[in-house]
Amino acid sequence: MAIQQTNGLSLILRLKISTDAAFSQVATAIGEAGGDIIAVDVIHVEKDYVIRDVTVNVHNDAHRERVVESLAQRPGIEVINVSDRTFLVHLGGKIEVQAKTPVKNRDDLSRVYTPGVARVCQAIHEDPSKAFQLTIKRNTVAVVTDGTAVLGLGDIGPEAALPVMEGKAMLFKQFAGVDAFPICLNTKDTDEIVAIVKAIAPGFGGINLEDISSPRCFEIEQRLREELDIPVFHDDQHGTAVVILAGLLNAVKLVGKRLPDLRVVVCGIGAAGVACTKILLSAGVKNVIGVDRAGIIERDRAYENPIWNWYARHTNPEGRRGDLMAAITGADVFIGVSGPGVLKPEHLQAMARDPIVFAMANPIPEILPEEAEPYVRILATGRSDYPNQINNVLCFPGIFRGALRVRAREINEEMKLAAAEAIAACVPEHQLNEQYIIPSVFNEAVVKAVSRAVAEAAVRTGVARREHAVPSY
Amino acid sequence: MAIQQTNGLSLILRLKISTDAAFSQVATAIGEAGGDIIAVDVIHVEKDYVIRDVTVNVHNDAHRERVVESLAQRPGIEVINVSDRTFLVHLGGKIEVQAKTPVKNRDDLSRVYTPGVARVCQAIHEDPSKAFQLTIKRNTVAVVTDGTAVLGLGDIGPEAALPVMEGKAMLFKQFAGVDAFPICLNTKDTDEIVAIVKAIAPGFGGINLEDISSPRCFEIEQRLREELDIPVFHDDQHGTAVVILAGLLNAVKLVGKRLPDLRVVVCGIGAAGVACTKILLSAGVKNVIGVDRAGIIERDRAYENPIWNWYARHTNPEGRRGDLMAAITGADVFIGVSGPGVLKPEHLQAMARDPIVFAMANPIPEILPEEAEPYVRILATGRSDYPNQINNVLCFPGIFRGALRVRAREINEEMKLAAAEAIAACVPEHQLNEQYIIPSVFNEAVVKAVSRAVAEAAVRTGVARREHAVPSY
Repeated sequence: MAIQQTNGLSLILRLKISTDAAFSQVATAIGEAGGDIIAVDVIHVEKDYVIRDVTVNVHNDAHRERVVESLAQRPGIEVINVSDRTFLVHLGGKIEVQAKTPVKNRDDLSRVYTPGVARVCQAIHEDPSKAFQLTIKRNTVAVVTDGTAVLGLGDIGPEAALPVMEGKAMLFKQFAGVDAFPICLNTKDTDEIVAIVKAIAPGFGGINLEDISSPRCFEIEQRLREELDIPVFHDDQHGTAVVILAGLLNAVKLVGKRLPDLRVVVCGIGAAGVACTKILLSAGVKNVIGVDRAGIIERDRAYENPIWNWYARHTNPEGRRGDLMAAITGADVFIGVSGPGVLKPEHLQAMARDPIVFAMANPIPEILPEEAEPYVRILATGRSDYPNQINNVLCFPGIFRGALRVRAREINEEMKLAAAEAIAACVPEHQLNEQYIIPSVFNEAVVKAVSRAVAEAAVRTGVARREHAVPSY
Repeated sequence: MAIQQTNGLSLILRLKISTDAAFSQVATAIGEAGGDIIAVDVIHVEKDYVIRDVTVNVHNDAHRERVVESLAQRPGIEVINVSDRTFLVHLGGKIEVQAKTPVKNRDDLSRVYTPGVARVCQAIHEDPSKAFQLTIKRNTVAVVTDGTAVLGLGDIGPEAALPVMEGKAMLFKQFAGVDAFPICLNTKDTDEIVAIVKAIAPGFGGINLEDISSPRCFEIEQRLREELDIPVFHDDQHGTAVVILAGLLNAVKLVGKRLPDLRVVVCGIGAAGVACTKILLSAGVKNVIGVDRAGIIERDRAYENPIWNWYARHTNPEGRRGDLMAAITGADVFIGVSGPGVLKPEHLQAMARDPIVFAMANPIPEILPEEAEPYVRILATGRSDYPNQINNVLCFPGIFRGALRVRAREINEEMKLAAAEAIAACVPEHQLNEQYIIPSVFNEAVVKAVSRAVAEAAVRTGVARREHAVPSY
C-alpha cells in the first residue's frame, strides 16, 4: 500500500509574468520545487505582462515556501498573492439559509408571512404534531457541539468548531437532502447542555450531537434520548460504531468466521470505543475485551468512570488481565479508536489466523499500514489515502434521512444494526476483497439503502410515527 | 378609503369535469358563489372527462364552503380535492439549508470537511475573531422566540410559532441576503432564555428576538445586550418603533410641525409602546403621554411593572391624569399599539389641528380607517389593505444587514434613528402626501438605504469592529 498524500495544501498563486518570460519558466520553477500544477487561469493581459492564477498542490507550509521562493527567484516572475484554497472555500461560511419559494409580491408575502401564516400557526397550536407537516421540523437536524473534542484538536471552543459543523451540514444536504444547522454552544456544563438542547428541540426533527468530549457525551445523550421524542444521535459514538460494524460484517465473510465466535479487542474505551462495543454485542459478538491506557478493563472490577463500570460488567468473559499484549493474544479482530503507534508488529503476530485490524486513530493510525501489511489479512483506517476508509459520512446522512422519513421518536439499536447491514450490503459479494470491505463515501446507493433499512427498522420496532412512509429513497 | 380584502383564502380546487359540461359552467358556478378565479391548469385529459386545477380566491372558510357547494351542485362537475394555497406553501417548511459549494469528490470533501477543515478550526482557535471571516457567523442571525406573543394569537407555544419565524427567515434572505435561522424555545423562563441565547451565540452574528411577551421581553433583551458582543434586537419593540418614527418624520413634514413641539399619545404600554416612546424621545420629541387600560401613566407614580416606573419618570411632563380622552385632548399624534376599537371619533375630534394617527392594532386597528377618515389628516395602520402600512419588514432586514457588514457589537439608539431616517427618506419629498408617508415593503431602495445608514451610525458611535466596510449595499 503506497502512501498517496492527499492531506496537503492546495494553493492559488497569482503571478505577474513579464512577456519576456515564457510560461514554461513558471512550470519549471514550480516543478523543480516539487509543486504539482493543477490548473492555470489567465486573469488579465497587458502589453508587457500577463496575470495568471496558478493552482498548485504542495505537501505543507514549508513546501509552500519553497515553491514561492523558487518562483520569486526567476527573473520576470512576480508572486502577487498566495491563497489557500481550503481557506478560500471557508470565507463567509459554507452554508446558507434559502427560501424555498420567492416572496415577489404582496400576495406571496400574505401567504408565507402575515396575515396568512396565522392560520397555519393556529392549526399547529391545535395539533402540535402538524409541525411535522407544516414546518421545517420535518426535515431538519440540529448539529450540536460544545467544541470540546473536535477532530484531533481537542477542546478548541465553539467558534473554532463551527467549520466542522458547517461541513457536516453540507454533507447532510448533499448526500441525503437533510437540512442541518450548526448549534455551537458556549458551555461545557452537562446540565446546561441538556437543558438547551431540550429547549431548542421544537424546531428540529432530530439532534446530531457532535464532538462532545467523553464521558459527558454519554450522560448528555442518554438524558436527551429519555427526555425528547425526536432522535438524538451522538455521531462520534454511533456513526463510527455503525461503519466499523459494516466493515466487520464484510471482513468476516472474507476470512470465513462468524460473529459469535470472534474474540475482539477494542482499544481506547472512550465515546467511540464504548459505542463500538455496544453495537458488536448487539450484533451477536460474545467476546469483547476492552483495553485503555491502564490496560485491560477487568471483568466486574469497580471503576470511577461509570461507563467503565458498565464495560466491566458486559465484556471480557474470559476474565483477562494485563496489557494490550495480554488482550490481543489469540484475538481475531483489533479495533483501535485510541492513538497513534499503539499497535506494534509483535501484537499482530500474536493474533489468531487472518487478523482483521481497524486502526482508526486520526490522523495517524494505531499502526501505519506499511508496517502492518506483512502481518494482517484485512486492514481498515479512518484515512482517505488508504483502502477501506471507515468514514461516518457513510452513516449519518442515511440514518437521519430514514428516521426523519418515518418521523421516528428515536434511533434505536435495531436501526443502527440495520444501517450497518445496509452499508455492508452495498459492496456486492463478487467485488468483496481485502482492499474493499466498505463502500466509497461517494457511492450514491449507500444513503438510499441505509435510509430504507433504517425506516423499516423504525417501523418494525414501533418508534415510527408514520408507518406508511418507508421510502424507496 | 375602500376596504380591499386581501386577507382571504386562496384555494386550489381540483375538479373532474365531464366532457358534457363546458368550462363556462365551472366559471359560472364559482362566479355565482362570489369566488374569484385566478388561474386554471389542465392536469389530465381523458376521453370523457378533464381534470383541472382551478385557483380561486374566497373571503373565508364559510365562503369556501359556498363555492364548493355551488360547484358540487352542477351536473358533470366533481370536486376531487380542495387545497389551501397558504397551507400548500407551508408543506415541509419554507426554508432550507444549502451548501454554498457542492461536494463532488474527495478533493472537495477534504477541503470543506476532514482533514482540511482542521487548519481552519485551528486558525479560529488561535484568533476567535476569525470566525467572522471563516464561518457563517459573518452573515447569520438567530430568530429566537418562546412562542408567547405570536401575531395576535398570544401564547401558542414554540412549534406553532415556527411558521412565523420561517417566514421571517425568508424575508431576511429575500430582502437583505441575510441568513436567518429560527430557534423556537420550549421554555418561558427568563433566566433560562438568557442562558440559552448566550450559549448559542458563538455561531451567530446577531440575535433577533421575536414574539416574546411583555414584560419578560425587556429583561431578556437588556441582559443579552449587556452580556453578548453581537447585536440583540427585539423586533416587536424596535422594528415597530423605527418604522413608526419613519412614518412620523414624513407626517410632520406634511402638517408643518416639528418633533420637539409635538404632543404625542402612545396607547398600549407594552413592548412596542415602550420602544416607540424611547425612540420618540431619542428623536427629540419632548411630550409623550402613555395610556394603558388603567388610564394615563402618571408622572413619577410608583408602579409594580418596572418598565412602567421608567415610563413614569420619563414621560408626561404636563402631569396629566385620567383616561384616554384626558390624554388625547390637544394631542398632535396618536400612536396605538393596543387593541381594536379603542379609539372613537370623539377622541379624534379632541385632537389638535391636522391629527396624525397610527392605529397599529392587528388585525383590527384601534379605529377603522372608514370611521377615522373625516377627522384625521394622516392615518397609518399595520395592514396591507390600507395606505401607509407600518410594516417591520421595512426595518429588520436592512438594520441587521448594516450591523453585520461592519460587525457591529450592538444595535444602539443612533443606529435605530439612522434606520428611521433612511426609511423616511425613501419617500421623495415631491411624492410625499397623506396617503404615502412610508415606502412600500417591496421598494428595493429601502434595504440599501437602511443598511448604509445603520453601518455609518455604527462606525460613528464606535460599535463597529470593521470600520472600512460601510457598504454601498
